[in-house]
Amino acid sequence: MNQKKKGTNAEREIIHMFWQTSDWAACRVAGSGSIKYPSPDIIAANLKRKLAIECKSTKSEYQYLEKREINELLEYAQKTNAEPWIAIKFSRTNWRFIQIKNLKETGKHYMATRGLLKDKGISFTSLLNKTFI
Amino acid sequence: MNQKKKGTNAEREIIHMFWQTSDWAACRVAGSGSIKYPSPDIIAANLKRKLAIECKSTKSEYQYLEKREINELLEYAQKTNAEPWIAIKFSRTNWRFIQIKNLKETGKHYMATRGLLKDKGISFTSLLNKTFI
Repeated sequence: MNQKKKGTNAEREIIHMFWQTSDWAACRVAGSGSIKYPSPDIIAANLKRKLAIECKSTKSEYQYLEKREINELLEYAQKTNAEPWIAIKFSRTNWRFIQIKNLKETGKHYMATRGLLKDKGISFTSLLNKTFI
Repeated sequence: MNQKKKGTNAEREIIHMFWQTSDWAACRVAGSGSIKYPSPDIIAANLKRKLAIECKSTKSEYQYLEKREINELLEYAQKTNAEPWIAIKFSRTNWRFIQIKNLKETGKHYMATRGLLKDKGISFTSLLNKTFI
């Protein structure tokens, strides 16, 4: 499976998770990696909250994110009053959601290891229940 | 140009219009015609408002919309607290935005003629300024 297809499948997994709840809707953003305007991979919302989500799955032990990606996520979130989140899935684990401030900064990138994600990331249920606040 | 490409270009025109304002962000929804969850063609938002937009351009004198499309737009909008809008562009005119209640109902479809859109539709500027209320 190529990178793009893999990314699309990862995004679809999260879309399904939101639609399986009773009150959330979610959709994938078209061409989020290619168009010239900042945009997240996924937008999710219910009657009260709006989430802008960048989404990564990896077989590696760490996940890098370009600062440009994160800045665009932030710009979109600030303009639309959405909460910016990073969704990361390491193999043989569930999706976890982490805030930008909790990623590790390394020069040109932000990154997360399995350990960091376990420690500072939250589950899908916690994301919906806002138990991170 | 095939139908899909034509639709994508029409959606991009509207995306550009939103990004040319100072305070709105907008994005196209991936696979809005094919995935199994209800979704609009475009989502646009600023700090205060959220719009879910179904988008059509035509060389014909009337534009039909399937009731299924409209119902899905409504479902998405209701779940996410967004305003549902239909964007329609007839050739040699500008985009106009119309509410579902102002479309004509014809059995399996909703539809708009040039005359109806001129009469009941509003300009992009009016949409942003909420002069329709």
